[in-house]
Amino acid sequence: MKIIVVGGSGTMGSAVITQLSQRNQVVNVSAIHGELKCDMTSEHSLRTMFKKVGEFHAVAICAGNVHFEDLQHMNSEKYFIGLNHKLMGQVNIVLVGLEYIQDNGSFTLVSGILDHDPVIGGSSASMVNGAINSFVKAAAIEMPRGIRINSISPTVLTESMTKYGPYFRGFDPVPAAKVALAYSKSIEGAQTGQVYSVL
Amino acid sequence: MKIIVVGGSGTMGSAVITQLSQRNQVVNVSAIHGELKCDMTSEHSLRTMFKKVGEFHAVAICAGNVHFEDLQHMNSEKYFIGLNHKLMGQVNIVLVGLEYIQDNGSFTLVSGILDHDPVIGGSSASMVNGAINSFVKAAAIEMPRGIRINSISPTVLTESMTKYGPYFRGFDPVPAAKVALAYSKSIEGAQTGQVYSVL
Repeated sequence: MKIIVVGGSGTMGSAVITQLSQRNQVVNVSAIHGELKCDMTSEHSLRTMFKKVGEFHAVAICAGNVHFEDLQHMNSEKYFIGLNHKLMGQVNIVLVGLEYIQDNGSFTLVSGILDHDPVIGGSSASMVNGAINSFVKAAAIEMPRGIRINSISPTVLTESMTKYGPYFRGFDPVPAAKVALAYSKSIEGAQTGQVYSVL
Repeated sequence: MKIIVVGGSGTMGSAVITQLSQRNQVVNVSAIHGELKCDMTSEHSLRTMFKKVGEFHAVAICAGNVHFEDLQHMNSEKYFIGLNHKLMGQVNIVLVGLEYIQDNGSFTLVSGILDHDPVIGGSSASMVNGAINSFVKAAAIEMPRGIRINSISPTVLTESMTKYGPYFRGFDPVPAAKVALAYSKSIEGAQTGQVYSVL
């Protein structure tokens, strides 16, 4: 298969590429450091990227920004950072990608544990993760041409604990390589409309 | 208690007012037909409304627009109708309302069954409902001054079946009066961070 990994230069994306490239051709697409550069919030940028890639069978997304801050200091603009980037960036990839992806292809989005297991300062991440998981379940029943869609919902990464540990006290981190297995299951398996928790 | 019902002129809002007004003072706030008019997407409009109401103990929200259309005809702008109105409109009510609500008060938001039980054309509603439920769980752990927050997730209303029935084949509708009981539990009970399904 030819698989586009969006955010392939990050901690999780690198592990996903390591896992998938054992059996597939992988294209690393990132905002800054990828083989191909792409801004997932821009339909034009996405369209240019898909045309450059040519024929492909799957998209694995490992990217998405949200703003972390205490609820009492949040405001509408700060929530829209996550809604515009992590949520609608991924939805845009699906909407535009549907025009280019091969029959029986798949989209794999990323959400995260905070949708149901919240932390202080994470209300925007919770909101966005819940939106992504529900979108995936809904979109799955409307996908044309045998195309599938799932989301991966990891807990905090082992590799991120030096940076995020203080926000995730008591959480049992998982290595990015374990999260990458869920991407493999989503892409190289046959299920659709699933939220794969990686704990 | 003095309770603000946002969307109190709609089918569900009317039932909520009927239920809550038996024991409480209720203020009906709606975009067009309420005792007080308010645009929940505008911080200025919300602030004006809260100042006019004066001291209050709870906000029950029964309002929120989303766009229904087949996935393949959706686009970013159409998803933002729901994100701006039903999602961020309700979040705005919480963020601004926190400055005015009494200690130990409560916010009750509305989501809906589509977050996990999707229908064709409902991907925006699913997305928004999932976002609301996860936001409520996250916001609950950061509420100051004993303030609580819950969401009500009803299936399709009996009263709406003539209009929405074709989209909800096989769903068992509930009367708005039953949904109103969940608002009573949220506001007149003591739980927080809950998603009350009404099925």
